Amino acid sequence: MSPWIAADWGTSRLRLWHLSAEDELIEARSSEDGMGGLAPAGFAPALARLSAGWEAALVLACGMVGARQGWVEAPYRPLPCPPLGPGLTSAPSGGPSGGPPVRIIPGLSQASPPDVMRGEETSIAGWLTANPGWDGVVCLPGSHSKWVEVSAGEVVSFRTFLTGELFAALGAHTVLRHSLSPSPGPDGWDQPAFAEALDATLSRPEQLAARLFSIRAEGLLTGLAPGAARARLSGLLIGAELAAARPWWLGREVAIIGEGPLAGLYAEALAAQAVPTRLAESGPMTLAGLVAARRMMEGRT
Amino acid sequence: MSPWIAADWGTSRLRLWHLSAEDELIEARSSEDGMGGLAPAGFAPALARLSAGWEAALVLACGMVGARQGWVEAPYRPLPCPPLGPGLTSAPSGGPSGGPPVRIIPGLSQASPPDVMRGEETSIAGWLTANPGWDGVVCLPGSHSKWVEVSAGEVVSFRTFLTGELFAALGAHTVLRHSLSPSPGPDGWDQPAFAEALDATLSRPEQLAARLFSIRAEGLLTGLAPGAARARLSGLLIGAELAAARPWWLGREVAIIGEGPLAGLYAEALAAQAVPTRLAESGPMTLAGLVAARRMMEGRT
Repeated sequence: MSPWIAADWGTSRLRLWHLSAEDELIEARSSEDGMGGLAPAGFAPALARLSAGWEAALVLACGMVGARQGWVEAPYRPLPCPPLGPGLTSAPSGGPSGGPPVRIIPGLSQASPPDVMRGEETSIAGWLTANPGWDGVVCLPGSHSKWVEVSAGEVVSFRTFLTGELFAALGAHTVLRHSLSPSPGPDGWDQPAFAEALDATLSRPEQLAARLFSIRAEGLLTGLAPGAARARLSGLLIGAELAAARPWWLGREVAIIGEGPLAGLYAEALAAQAVPTRLAESGPMTLAGLVAARRMMEGRT
Repeated sequence: MSPWIAADWGTSRLRLWHLSAEDELIEARSSEDGMGGLAPAGFAPALARLSAGWEAALVLACGMVGARQGWVEAPYRPLPCPPLGPGLTSAPSGGPSGGPPVRIIPGLSQASPPDVMRGEETSIAGWLTANPGWDGVVCLPGSHSKWVEVSAGEVVSFRTFLTGELFAALGAHTVLRHSLSPSPGPDGWDQPAFAEALDATLSRPEQLAARLFSIRAEGLLTGLAPGAARARLSGLLIGAELAAARPWWLGREVAIIGEGPLAGLYAEALAAQAVPTRLAESGPMTLAGLVAARRMMEGRT
């Protein structure tokens, strides 16, 4: 048993935790070397850079590092199944200097409707480690928001919504870019504008496409503030997601695993629908899941 | 009376028609010098380049050239009003060599729900010139699809949908870019995939955000062909637009003013809903509208 490295390697970020043989945190680091910006040959150097000086016998990674466009493609495990299971994929050796072996956790797939996840399975495993025996729905807001049904320790079904990527693409690559403030700008967040927009698409989701252009038109005609425009776009898209995800949360308990303000927005929106929620930060949940995966790997569970 | 130039100056293209004093077409030209790629100082040179060698006493232009990000901002005329009216805006002189004066046609605005148009008012005027006394709904598919109610020669109300820009942003700037073929690629268009997707969001528009990610998941899991993925994205977005625009077309006659395949897709989709449609090419309609604007300018109507 030796120190090791837990890695959450997503599309836009790489997060590393240096852990002792007893899984105690020694140090955490992160960088912008997400899978989205790396060619296959770039993964080993990015890992070596960020873990410089760390002694480790193993790197255990989850997330988009195992995607087809990632370092090496890891398989998907088909539902229903526990979030973690056998079948780690070895990444190619880390170059002339060697470096510890790298193992990638498989994603999960659903045949109908077709859907996939990479990384969220590990956060869910962390949540179940912290809440043994928990049954319910897990919501993981983000670029690709996931709604996941968990029952008797297994992932039973899930659905992915492109909400975060839609927000980014609309804000940067359509006419709406003229109307929005850059990310949390000096004019701040307009909570009433968010709430009003969320209500609008939650109750009338078919109005989404029309309401999007209204943001631009109102900016031109009545000077809608950039902060209000940004909050409204967020509200419209999250409202549309919640409308589509209604069967997932109606009458259920929902665990929200996410980060900071975004997770809070989902929690408030669900609270307004009288849905009981519990919030957890995704970082600690993912770390707990990686630790659980390491223990499983060594037959310690 | 002298020869003149009619200009349709949109976000992505500049189209010019050289017309005789009697409004007969002498020559037509177009370039990629759309408003979206030009700084204010770039408009006069772009116009001079494309109209090189043409004798003209006037340039009459419609479209995004008059937007706040365009050459010079032209006002909006508030609804209800005829598509064309008084109040042309003069663009700054065309540089040291002079060049003919440039006049820009005002756009239209609607107070509630807030909405704006620039350029479509001229196409609608062309349609009414070709179909005097016509009442009904005009659909103009495109980057910013418009649904426009016309009654007694006036534009009464309209609504804009971001459908075309959504398609472009999703296809180029989200994870869907890995799944789609480049524009009409070698694997062609998959009409059944389009029709199935259109039905899905037309009947259940709230499913849009979830169905978008399914394109990616199905590409990964079952090898959805890039042409089918592209047709499906188009179908999902047009279906969502038609769902939101239902009050505009249900039980109405719809004139579709658009270009080529896209206008045909809208016509087929509406025909499947038993909506009678008439199709017109946007180029000739815009030219007819510019000619009508010139006659109005000279008191010839």
